[in-house]
Parts: sequence; C-alpha cells; structure tokens
Amino acid sequence: MSAHSEARGTLYLVPTPLDFGVTQAAPAAPSEWLPAETLDTARRLTHWITENAKSTRAFLKRVDALATLAAPVQAHQIVELPRAAHKKGDHAPQAGSDAQARELLAPALLGHDMGLVSEAGMPAIADPGSSIVRAAHAIGLRVVPLTGPISLMLALAASGLNGQSFAFVGYVPQEATERTKRLRELEAQALKTGQTQILIETPYRNAALLQALLQALHPHTRLAVCAALTLPRQVCRSALVQEWKRSPKAVAEDLPLDAPCVFLLGR
Amino acid sequence: MSAHSEARGTLYLVPTPLDFGVTQAAPAAPSEWLPAETLDTARRLTHWITENAKSTRAFLKRVDALATLAAPVQAHQIVELPRAAHKKGDHAPQAGSDAQARELLAPALLGHDMGLVSEAGMPAIADPGSSIVRAAHAIGLRVVPLTGPISLMLALAASGLNGQSFAFVGYVPQEATERTKRLRELEAQALKTGQTQILIETPYRNAALLQALLQALHPHTRLAVCAALTLPRQVCRSALVQEWKRSPKAVAEDLPLDAPCVFLLGR
Repeated sequence: MSAHSEARGTLYLVPTPLDFGVTQAAPAAPSEWLPAETLDTARRLTHWITENAKSTRAFLKRVDALATLAAPVQAHQIVELPRAAHKKGDHAPQAGSDAQARELLAPALLGHDMGLVSEAGMPAIADPGSSIVRAAHAIGLRVVPLTGPISLMLALAASGLNGQSFAFVGYVPQEATERTKRLRELEAQALKTGQTQILIETPYRNAALLQALLQALHPHTRLAVCAALTLPRQVCRSALVQEWKRSPKAVAEDLPLDAPCVFLLGR
Repeated sequence: MSAHSEARGTLYLVPTPLDFGVTQAAPAAPSEWLPAETLDTARRLTHWITENAKSTRAFLKRVDALATLAAPVQAHQIVELPRAAHKKGDHAPQAGSDAQARELLAPALLGHDMGLVSEAGMPAIADPGSSIVRAAHAIGLRVVPLTGPISLMLALAASGLNGQSFAFVGYVPQEATERTKRLRELEAQALKTGQTQILIETPYRNAALLQALLQALHPHTRLAVCAALTLPRQVCRSALVQEWKRSPKAVAEDLPLDAPCVFLLGR
C-alpha cells in the first residue's frame, strides 16, 4: 500500500467496561455499556495499542461472545504502551517517547485501522494514551473517539455539583500534612470560582482519602463520592460535609470504598 | 405508596445522541451511541424532567422505533426545567430554585422512577440539570448515571492533550479584548500546570473563536478542535498553533465549524 494519506488507517479510541478487576459471579455483557458503533468497530479491528495486552485479550473475548470477531483473538496484533507510561502517564514528551509512539503506529501507515484501549474506561482520560494520539495527529492519521463509560463524567453528572465548570486534578499527595494542604487549595479554588474539583485515589486508599476530606473541608462545602460506577453495588452520595459527618456510620457501611471511586467537591 | 425511602423512585441521568438539531438525510439509530442499559432504562421510564419537552418526545420516538416503549409517548409525563436554567445554567441556588427542583421530583416520592435528560449528550454536564440532581440527593433518592456520548470527553481523548489533568471552562467572552485576555489567562494556566483547558462556543461563533485562538496563543501551544462529534462529517484536528497557521486554507475548508465544536488547548 502507498504512503499516501488516503491509504492510511484510522486510530480509533475504544472505551471498555468499568468492571475490570472486579470479581463478579456473572459479569454483564459489554453491550450493557458499549453501543453498537463501539462494538462493531472493536469487532472489525485487528491491530491494538494497549495499557495491558492481557486485559485487552479478555475484552476482545467478551466482544467475540456477543458476535464473532473479524479475526480470532490469537491472530490480533496487540502491543503495549511503554511501561513508563503506566503509572506516571505518558503525556509529557520524554526523550524518545514521541518516536516510540510513532513506531507503535506503524501498522496504520500500512493501511491498517488501529484501536487504542486502556484497562477500563476511555483511553487517554485519567489513563495513558495521549502520547499515541498526539503522534497519530503528527503523522496525519484520522483519529475517531468512540462512546463508552467514563467514570469521571458519570460521577460528575450524578454528583449534583456544577457541571458547567469543573477540573479533574488526578491524585492528591499521600502524606497527611501535604494532603490536607492540597485538599484545602482545591476547596479554595472551588469555593472562589465555582469550579467543581474531581479527584481519584487507588482503591485501598479510598477510605483514608474520605476521612481526610471530611477533616480538611469546611462544613458547608459539598462533597460527593461515586463508588463502583456501572456495577450492581454502585452508590453515588452527595451532601454537605457537615451532613456527611452527622452519619459516619452510614458512610462506612453503605459506600463500597473498596471499589474504584470518584471524589468531587465544590459548592 | 408510603413515603418510606424503600418505596421511592430512582433518578436516572439519561444521555441522548449528539445529533440534536443536525439536518440529516438518514439519522442513525440511537443504538449506535447508546448501550443496552441506557436504552432499556429509557424504554421503561414514563416520568421525565428535561431541558426541552419537544426534543425529549423526539428522542423517545427514536427509542420506540428500536423496541416498543413500556407506555406510548403521549402517556409520558414530561416536565421542563425552569426557563432561567436554560441559558445561564441552574447550578447556583437562586431564591426558590431548590424548592422548585424538589417539586419536579414529586413523582419519585410516589415511587416512580424518573429520567433527567437534556437536548444532546449527558444532562448536568455543560448543560442544565445539576439543581435537580442536588435536590434528588437532598430528598434521599438514589441517583444512577447512564452511559452515552459526552462531547467534551470524546474531544479530550481525541485531542492528544493531557487527559490526566484538565478543566472545562465553558464559554469565553464575546468582546474581542476581553476574549483575548481570557484566552491568554487559560493558556498561561495550561502552560504553567499542564492542565488542558476545554472550551465551547455557540456554533455560529465557532469560526470567530478559532481565529481569536490562533491570534491570541503562543506558536508552541497545542490547539485541538473537534467538530461534529459522532456524526459522519466528524473531524478532530490537533496541532501546534504555528502549524495551524501554516495551513489556514485547510483549516477553513475541512473543519465543519458550523457544527457543534469543542476547543482544547494545552501543552
């Protein structure tokens, strides 16, 4: 195939269900959360760039169970993002990372459509992948994002907090003094400008973050926690900090803080 | 039915396709962008709170065409958000707005599940609805967000900009001097902190905003524009400002700036 842009493949951003890593008696079919355009595209693609090849093969098997893939999973080319991209993110252009991203996109230059995928949710949002998308634009590929569940936005809509101005700030520091300082900075920003602040944490630290939020924030600040989004035990709770404090028992008992959570604060 | 919380209805946040207001020869079925859980819930509900009753009836007819609704559209109770909520948003608790929101949720206290919906995309994100969600939490309703297309996040993933830290800032001022000042503020924030800034505009002002961005921003700032998301003529373009300026003709000819657009800037 020629290198002419007409012959190049498209980079699709393929979202996956949010139940990754969740032990379930009977996992729901991915069609519960992924619409036809997303499933049809996933079925057709054979070249993937992913955060984790194993989880991508598992995803493809679930899609295959709904309707047969164009090619068997074993025949797919599935390459992983460089390790460095996993924890710290791959956005900052380190020495060589842009060149590496272009190498991973080589099949698209030969005319193959490709899929970018993460373990759960939308690639390149609160997850690695943006270095690949940037490289795709640089070499003139068409980039097409597909619809699927995005935990940050499900949580924002369900929070009752301001959805006309918001920021996702990622993780806060683990060390107690620094964490309190950062939470108060975010609260000051939210109260001053009305911009909802959205944060996440590793599940085993969710309970500690919730306690830190209740201690650090003003009684009249609104705090929302959405846990286990899209899953059967999903809970979204939103109340003023003083109201959260009035029922600490309910907080501890009803919120599945061992599941992935999104925390939101604002006015 | 009793007022006991067990007997209360749930408030579902129901996303809709992004093709609202777009003239199309043959509109795609909503199942292209809405997964089974969303469509099944929409089919079952009979009580709605909406930005626009007419667009909600049109949406329900499209869902009905895929598989019959539990009750005919004419039998649904569809109430609109107060007018004031439409343009300026309904988040700020004005005098009486919280009481008004609770009134709209009265059917849920009688045990009816309810749907909150906007004209296109996810309610309460870059759209009104958050006053209703806040009221739902205040009266102890369960709030469940459903999956569908969210233009801001489709654009963010497709932009190649930082998706680990980002802010949605809504609209910028229309007046030229103020607009330039605001765009440079947003750029300074993005370059200093790495936080991608996301903005929107009314379609008929998209071309003017793009010109203002190209004039105001530094040559090395990255600018992305995603237009007509999920539609056949969708385009996502991402490049440094100096690269955008090198091909002004391509910009003008290939980007459907008359369609809804999302603008993103960062490093």
